[in-house]
Amino acid sequence: MTVVVPYPTLLSTVTGVFAARGVPPDRARVAAEALCHGDLTGVTSHGLVNLTRLYLPLLDSDRADPAADMAVTADLGACVRADARRALGLWSAAQAVDLAAARAARLGVGVVSLRGATHIGCAGFHAARAALHGMVGLVASNCGGQRIARPPGGLEPLLGTNPLALACPAGERHPFVLDMSTTVVPTGRVRAAARAGRAVPPGWLADDSGEPVTDPAAFDRGEAHLLWLGGRPETGAYKGFGLGLLVEVLAALVPGAALGPVGGGADDDIGVLALVIAPELLRSGFSGDAGRLFEAVLGCAAADPRAPVTYPGWPEGERARWRREHGVPVPEELYDELRAVAPALRAAG
Amino acid sequence: MTVVVPYPTLLSTVTGVFAARGVPPDRARVAAEALCHGDLTGVTSHGLVNLTRLYLPLLDSDRADPAADMAVTADLGACVRADARRALGLWSAAQAVDLAAARAARLGVGVVSLRGATHIGCAGFHAARAALHGMVGLVASNCGGQRIARPPGGLEPLLGTNPLALACPAGERHPFVLDMSTTVVPTGRVRAAARAGRAVPPGWLADDSGEPVTDPAAFDRGEAHLLWLGGRPETGAYKGFGLGLLVEVLAALVPGAALGPVGGGADDDIGVLALVIAPELLRSGFSGDAGRLFEAVLGCAAADPRAPVTYPGWPEGERARWRREHGVPVPEELYDELRAVAPALRAAG
Repeated sequence: MTVVVPYPTLLSTVTGVFAARGVPPDRARVAAEALCHGDLTGVTSHGLVNLTRLYLPLLDSDRADPAADMAVTADLGACVRADARRALGLWSAAQAVDLAAARAARLGVGVVSLRGATHIGCAGFHAARAALHGMVGLVASNCGGQRIARPPGGLEPLLGTNPLALACPAGERHPFVLDMSTTVVPTGRVRAAARAGRAVPPGWLADDSGEPVTDPAAFDRGEAHLLWLGGRPETGAYKGFGLGLLVEVLAALVPGAALGPVGGGADDDIGVLALVIAPELLRSGFSGDAGRLFEAVLGCAAADPRAPVTYPGWPEGERARWRREHGVPVPEELYDELRAVAPALRAAG
Repeated sequence: MTVVVPYPTLLSTVTGVFAARGVPPDRARVAAEALCHGDLTGVTSHGLVNLTRLYLPLLDSDRADPAADMAVTADLGACVRADARRALGLWSAAQAVDLAAARAARLGVGVVSLRGATHIGCAGFHAARAALHGMVGLVASNCGGQRIARPPGGLEPLLGTNPLALACPAGERHPFVLDMSTTVVPTGRVRAAARAGRAVPPGWLADDSGEPVTDPAAFDRGEAHLLWLGGRPETGAYKGFGLGLLVEVLAALVPGAALGPVGGGADDDIGVLALVIAPELLRSGFSGDAGRLFEAVLGCAAADPRAPVTYPGWPEGERARWRREHGVPVPEELYDELRAVAPALRAAG
């Protein structure tokens, strides 16, 4: 029930799909890398599954503009405000990080504050571009006007799942890449469980009275709401909600993008923060210290010797290395979806 | 069993205590504000209780230097690296934010990356200084070499409780101030429960087999460890741990402070990140949008009409306003501790 597709085939296929929709080829390639990153690393909720469900409908309905150029609306050197003008977020978030990294390489820090974006895919993919240059990258994105999660004690959803990612080099090892929604899980994991007919653990969803709900389909029926990281009030729900607001402030309020609590609506005019710090400009020895830090985490004694201690980004890095060599497993249903929109893959089939 | 102390009395008393230890008067005043902020806002785990337990021993044992000046070791304009040289963290974190805000006022963003710090108290107190100037402030601090919490699946503690704070103006309302440890709770709340003989909720502590522990005294007996925000692995423990690492990277790895996982030891050579963004330099309208954002949160329908929805910083702001006017409640035991070290308060008693 799974088709193993060579990574280069997957990448060129998706690149071709975006290019056929009018995305310039170099941008289509970056967008395809961002999308396939989910399947390559195992974060399948943010991978190929979103091609026909999210990105192609965005392009087909003109909510995303395939050829739009980013417009810089304020440039203070280390701090830039820009408008993505509805370009594919899969590409424009990468562009924002690259610009922030270029500024950081000169000035120690670079901030690109972006409005007018569309869904960026895995925030960690974009943050990790900074780590490739030996820098620390932080990427946050709100969900435009989309309202998904309620404040603790509230009855109405106000904010999206507001992802936050940080990447840092780890010497010779896979970079540290934290890539998290500020809710317990992103909606994609709830919907994947619903499609698979699997119950979700207590602690992801609750009903109006606060009781745990384990039927993932209850979420889209409006009978259960998604909880913030921290879960119950006494175990830190206000921290998860506060992190959601932190992302709303940094990613959307600062550049003037759409805000979930104000107006609400679709996930258009998304706000993105790309922040890059270049530590080697501040001191020598950063790279070696980074290697020692993450090596020490990997060296921590494990409760279960068969489950070594790792850090966020390490398991994903291992999985990606294997799949680059041996191919990417794609569920048959998803493979058929891809064949339907990708002439190149059909020809090879 | 509670003494109500006028806020100005409390502030001048603590200022006097620090000044008597050799802290220059203007710095002693800021340090006293930072310490009393805990009692003023209700974050009592980070207030006066730490004066005789933490800060005076730091000064008396020469682990903190009362009169040290911060040394700037790299200055790239928007990005500064500095060494606090063991000055009181209660003061030097405020100084770092003020310097970052001064740079942001010119350049849109300011980063001060500080090593050599001592315990900074409430991170939110420092971040909120940026909000006073209409800016967004982020403050993160590691715990130097101190190891408190274990990675998920690990048997050894590697990191501190690594606090993270963000402050943002909210129009006419109390500023948004998220101030959180990246563990479920800071150790101060566990120890306060132990002193009071109260059980803690399941979800704060666990034993070696992962079972919940509700006896807070088990923590200092080494029979229970503190959990990360997110709690169990399936409800996001790796996110809390990842946020702990995010703080370790931004606050300590970047400036070259002590790292929990590398070597370990006491909470000396603490690292601090102060990041300030001046949104009004990027666009007009930020201030009004900020007011509307947080007003919309306060306007969210509440499940319990007696418990209105708020945002982090709002309840603390209300409490502080009341206590500035009517006095700060200080438990008698703590009042006696303060009298023992504060001649001024003794004379007034």
